[in-house]
Amino acid sequence: MTPTPTPSNPPATLYLEDLKPGMRFGAPRWEVTEEELKRFAGEFDPQPFHLDHEAAKASVFGGLAASGWHTAAMMMGLFTRSELKLANGLVGMSIDGLRWHRPVRPGDALSLEVEILEVRRSTSNPGFGVVKMRWQGSNQNGEPVIEALPNLWVQARRAG
Amino acid sequence: MTPTPTPSNPPATLYLEDLKPGMRFGAPRWEVTEEELKRFAGEFDPQPFHLDHEAAKASVFGGLAASGWHTAAMMMGLFTRSELKLANGLVGMSIDGLRWHRPVRPGDALSLEVEILEVRRSTSNPGFGVVKMRWQGSNQNGEPVIEALPNLWVQARRAG
Repeated sequence: MTPTPTPSNPPATLYLEDLKPGMRFGAPRWEVTEEELKRFAGEFDPQPFHLDHEAAKASVFGGLAASGWHTAAMMMGLFTRSELKLANGLVGMSIDGLRWHRPVRPGDALSLEVEILEVRRSTSNPGFGVVKMRWQGSNQNGEPVIEALPNLWVQARRAG
Repeated sequence: MTPTPTPSNPPATLYLEDLKPGMRFGAPRWEVTEEELKRFAGEFDPQPFHLDHEAAKASVFGGLAASGWHTAAMMMGLFTRSELKLANGLVGMSIDGLRWHRPVRPGDALSLEVEILEVRRSTSNPGFGVVKMRWQGSNQNGEPVIEALPNLWVQARRAG
């Protein structure tokens, strides 16, 4: 885990009313080491292609690869360090879709771009709303590694 | 991490041809401690409601809650220890949807039920196929905590 530090000039805290479709937020980079890759896999996804170079070469991954859930967790790590700061925190409700585009390898440096897709106030609880986003995670070569469509529960500045 | 041990009578390795919609596979239980909950959050999702009891009480979670990505990773941990053993391992391609139904708390014991929904041979690579599943994760009270629809890349016994 080597995210670059949070900038010293923190972005403003945002509410539901501040978010509009098309807004984009960047995040720092996250380098994953072989040790971290194997530690996560050992705890949550202990399959040979996440733990052993030789077994991984013979697998569909063609070499040691991070657990897809480790990649997703690193995206969350980047998201919490992104420019998007929400009043009630980053609270996920659901994911409309998630795709792993290519393996994440030891030494990869991942980045995340977040785009707001939809903003919808809750009818049952108008002090909050649901914001659909797209996460695009890439490696140091600019190649996509993961994409997801999370829905967040976001506090409004005013109810209704 | 306290999954119950793998049974001493391991299930058979399955191929694409062996999987049919409606098949179900169980998995052992996974107890999450407060220490593990905070360790995961500290690394991947360092938000106050995952790290601090007082801050969590005042949040939408109403008390300390696991990161949703920790819950997803624990489901993967249960999946790797489930009765479903596939020839090329458990290789996720994508998730059609994922929903967190309620918070996971320190001391919760999670279980996973897996159901096969669809089995489709790849046209471009007929030695493999895509299998859509439903994961239903529950806590020790039988309450749903997470549900997901993963698509796995599954080796066939014979190509075509």
